[in-house]
Amino acid sequence: MEVKGISQAVISRLPRYFRYLGELKDEGIERVSSQELSDIMQVTASQIRQDLNNFGGFGQQGYGYNVEYLYEEIGRILGLDQEHNLIIVGAGHLGQALVNYRDFERRGFIFRGIFDNNPQIRGMQIHGILVRPMEEMEQFVREKGIDIAVLTIPKESAVEVAEQLVSYGIKGIWNFAHVDLHVPQGIQVESVHLSDSLMKLSYNLSSGSI
Amino acid sequence: MEVKGISQAVISRLPRYFRYLGELKDEGIERVSSQELSDIMQVTASQIRQDLNNFGGFGQQGYGYNVEYLYEEIGRILGLDQEHNLIIVGAGHLGQALVNYRDFERRGFIFRGIFDNNPQIRGMQIHGILVRPMEEMEQFVREKGIDIAVLTIPKESAVEVAEQLVSYGIKGIWNFAHVDLHVPQGIQVESVHLSDSLMKLSYNLSSGSI
Repeated sequence: MEVKGISQAVISRLPRYFRYLGELKDEGIERVSSQELSDIMQVTASQIRQDLNNFGGFGQQGYGYNVEYLYEEIGRILGLDQEHNLIIVGAGHLGQALVNYRDFERRGFIFRGIFDNNPQIRGMQIHGILVRPMEEMEQFVREKGIDIAVLTIPKESAVEVAEQLVSYGIKGIWNFAHVDLHVPQGIQVESVHLSDSLMKLSYNLSSGSI
Repeated sequence: MEVKGISQAVISRLPRYFRYLGELKDEGIERVSSQELSDIMQVTASQIRQDLNNFGGFGQQGYGYNVEYLYEEIGRILGLDQEHNLIIVGAGHLGQALVNYRDFERRGFIFRGIFDNNPQIRGMQIHGILVRPMEEMEQFVREKGIDIAVLTIPKESAVEVAEQLVSYGIKGIWNFAHVDLHVPQGIQVESVHLSDSLMKLSYNLSSGSI
């Protein structure tokens, strides 16, 4: 299947398609039309047809999409057919929330290690995973073939830790620290800036109330 | 100051300007040129000038922007000069992480109550705030003038709880449940779909490695 040249806009909509198709699949639904998808996703049917046309012809006029096939294909495009080895750096509440979130493991994101430099929680187990001191991180990353690091540490240390992780061979960083990370080419960073999101809500509340 | 007609694209970049200007302010820097901002934010200087021109003339050719003034103005546009009363529904790790995050309070987002229907944590205090049973939510929201609810509950209950909250008078929902919420007009929803974000990282890792 040809997936080159898909725009970033389409790519960023794929997880949402994947989510809805997964729900339809769980409900035992085998086929769905673009109009039905349009109704539940609140996106126009023509947008859906355009987006899904990027992945070739698994929609047939008057017949709809094969839910399971489309779900699997989009999953494959998203790289969910591969297993990823993750570590979490920062075992605070947010780190613990992420480790305990079952959905990630189901999608192939396997937490292998947790690191924190707080001696009080060192040796603790979270979701069956030992919290290790930061000094062990380099060896752990190299030996276990860790490809993704999740940063749930304060912004003050995030930049330095990210640099270290890249030098250890990490390929992707899922960043929750409230700072933008500038990494070498070939390294992927996806940031979740919670404050930015809350400020957008705040803006919409003020402008909506004018 | 005229702020009508600003595009959503500009709006969505404002929290990031606000963050960088706040850092410059904390460092005691009084003026910054669009070129300097461009260097630290890794956005083109012309993009910065265009964006900030929306807010009138506080940049002067060859003189730069007044950091504190611009910071305050953007904060005002984002509604950060108003205080918001928040409740969290769902006192798991994610809910606890958000309650404990000091930055939100500093920006005027004040957590007033925490609700959870797990009897084991009922009566617990998190960051000095009592965890209350869900049955007390309606009265609490109405009496305390709560305007924002943060949903850190599983998707199975999120849709119903969101409907209840809207009927109690909530104006904004910050949604962490892995489901899209469809709310009446006039109600603002901002969703943080963590799985979607991780899938985007996964996509970029696979496509980057081809």
